[in-house]
Parts: sequence; structure tokens; C-alpha cells
Amino acid sequence: MKISLAFDVHGTLVDASSVLEPLASYVGGEAASFFETWKYKQREYAFRRRMMEDDVDFSLCTRQALDYACLRHKVEIPEEGKLALFDFSKRLPAYPEAKVALERLKEMGFKLFAFTNGPLDEVKELLRHAELEDCFMSIYSVEGSRTFKPDPAVYESFLRSNHTGHRFTWFISGNSFDVIGAKNIGLKVVWVQRTLDSIMDPWGVSLDQIVKNLDELVAFFRDK
Amino acid sequence: MKISLAFDVHGTLVDASSVLEPLASYVGGEAASFFETWKYKQREYAFRRRMMEDDVDFSLCTRQALDYACLRHKVEIPEEGKLALFDFSKRLPAYPEAKVALERLKEMGFKLFAFTNGPLDEVKELLRHAELEDCFMSIYSVEGSRTFKPDPAVYESFLRSNHTGHRFTWFISGNSFDVIGAKNIGLKVVWVQRTLDSIMDPWGVSLDQIVKNLDELVAFFRDK
Repeated sequence: MKISLAFDVHGTLVDASSVLEPLASYVGGEAASFFETWKYKQREYAFRRRMMEDDVDFSLCTRQALDYACLRHKVEIPEEGKLALFDFSKRLPAYPEAKVALERLKEMGFKLFAFTNGPLDEVKELLRHAELEDCFMSIYSVEGSRTFKPDPAVYESFLRSNHTGHRFTWFISGNSFDVIGAKNIGLKVVWVQRTLDSIMDPWGVSLDQIVKNLDELVAFFRDK
Repeated sequence: MKISLAFDVHGTLVDASSVLEPLASYVGGEAASFFETWKYKQREYAFRRRMMEDDVDFSLCTRQALDYACLRHKVEIPEEGKLALFDFSKRLPAYPEAKVALERLKEMGFKLFAFTNGPLDEVKELLRHAELEDCFMSIYSVEGSRTFKPDPAVYESFLRSNHTGHRFTWFISGNSFDVIGAKNIGLKVVWVQRTLDSIMDPWGVSLDQIVKNLDELVAFFRDK
């Protein structure tokens, strides 16, 4: 059986932190800390909504987390500024090495998938804009499942939908919660730690591989 | 039927932020921001563990969130320092007005309960040390339920265990996630907003009452 590689999208294939540039025009020097609050709350809101059995899509969590960050950092961003930030987030650039690395992996015979917490149409558009769409056999979103990664049900449902077994699937993500979630159901995982400031949650989980970028991922699978 | 008042504990009756003082000896001027990271992650970890169907108690989330905060803020706290912080957290002081306010509410005929995400023995000891224990008919912990507030099942289970109905129960908390969780199952809620820096998640939830402290809570129930 061919090996499948399932890629998370934001922070793995496309650079979510590039929103710092337009953000700085509203938030100034505090942009990095504002962005951190926004991302923390976005995830917390997604996890809490799930826990409350309150069925919302990830975009609402993103919007309300931005509102929280404004309150927390005592910054006002006008409504058109918020819309501009969301629009920008739909056209995030690919990491510079992503396209060539994915093409290499495809040539090497791996089946590639994108697997995201974001809404399907948005993520398709994002990958199209980043010129990565054609690398994937399919793009899989949790949308409609009423839950999010790292719920084990979501990873299982990804495997079933794409006819790929546990033993033949590697999961690749730059996000700690997502790597731990995939490992939790027994997948092999690679963590893409792009900077030394990127932190793995200290839960004592042993990862199968850590790489700095997708070029290192290609090298890792070439040597296997 | 008598009205029941169910109180969250940390940040509602006892002052969790008093840990800032011992924390400053390890972390220095960054203590407030370190503490914020610690609290953010403590909750995120609890919500994520639940989402991953990974049954751990809240204390593990607290410990691993402290480890995360050390990594994030590039601070080393020796093992005995961490133990000292956990010990300190088991003997947090009551807010100055808490004891008298709870006694007034009891005299006014309300049935008082403590209702916490923390382990039962720890919270009992905490309330004993804070000299609040005798104010309550019972102290209820989620321990053993394999989940945490704001899971609706937890609030329902509290109501069942204490033979108190939705219509006759008010829930009082200083924590936004908890107030929203209680409102989500139809309880009347009071948010204790002790400082203007305390933020209600901007989810558009309408609260029944906001007070600055428990003296104002007494006044609110006296006027009802």
C-alpha cells in the first residue's frame, strides 16, 4: 500500500504569521503579542464550543478571538479593518519551500492530503492562491462534523474518507496540539518546528520526527 | 423552594492572582504576563484533554501549563520552586469581603454551594484554610466525571447531586468561560468582574447581573 502524507495547512503549508504585517498598521509594536492572544483564544474558543456542544464553525471562533484580542490589548480595529484582516487570512502565502517540497514528495510516490480545521471552501481557495492545490489527492476539512482536531473522531474520519490506514499514514503539522492529537490515535507524526520559539506542549509525547521545514521533510522520507 | 447559589472557587472566592508574589521571585518583572500564559494554557489543556478523551485530572493540566509557561517565557524554575508554587496555590487567601458576604447570604436564607473544576480534597482544604468551608451546604467537584466545566453534563450533574432545580439556582463566577457555560444550560448567572481588566468573552451572551465583588452580590440579592 502506498504511504499517505496528511498535511495540516495553517502554520504548516501557509504562513499564518504573515498577517503580522497588516496587523501592525492597527496594533503597532504590540502586533506579535496581539497575534499570540488571537491565536490562543481562537483555539480555546474552538475547544470550548465543542465542549459546550455548541455547534459553530471555526470562522466564528476566529472572529470572536480577534474581538477578544482587541479588548485584551485595548485596541480598536474598525469593522473594515477586521474584514481586511480576514480577507488577508484567506490569501496567506505558502512557505517558500512548500511547493517544490510537495512536488518532490509526490514524485517519490507518496499520496498527499491536506487536512484542516478550516472551512472547506476557504481552505481550497487558500491553497489555490498559494499554488499548492494541485499537489493534493484531496483536501479534507472537519466542516460538518460538529467537532475539530484534536478530537480523535476527526482523525479517524479522515482515514476512513480517504481509504488510508493507520499504519500507512504520516501526519505532518507545525501545530503542537495537532501533532499530539494525531499521535493520540496512533498515527506516525512529524512536527515542523520552523523556529526555536515554536513550543511543543510538554506532555511527554514522543514524536517520530522533527524537521525545521519541508525540505528537511523531503530528506527524511528520501532516507527512509 | 429555597434559592441555591452555586459559587465557583478560584478567582471567585479565593484570589488565585496572589500567587504572583511568590512567582515574582522566580520570574521577576514578567510575573503578570507569565501568570497569564500559565492560566491560558491550564484551561486550554483541560479543554483539549477532554476533547482528546484523555482522562486526566486538573492538577496535571496545571503542572504542564506551568512547564509550558517556563518554556514560553524562557524561565527555569527549579523543581522545588514549582512544588512551592503548587503548595502556595493550595492555600490561596479568600477575597477580603468573601467570608462576611457568604455569611450574610446564608442568613438571608440562601443555600450556598461551592462548585469547582479542582480536585475535591484540594478544594476542601483550600476553603478550610480560607475559612470559608462552613458557609457551604456542600462542596462539589467535577473530579471523577472525566470532564470539566463548561461541559453541560457537569452543571447538570451538579444540579442533580444537590437536588436543586434550574429555576432555583444562580451560578456565580469570576471566570468568563464558567459564566458562559452555566448560562448555556439555562442557569441564571452573575459575573464577578473584580477589575476592569477582567474580560467577558465577546460571544454576545447576556448575563443576568454583573457585580464588582461579593458585597455587591449581597446587595443585589437583598434588593430582589
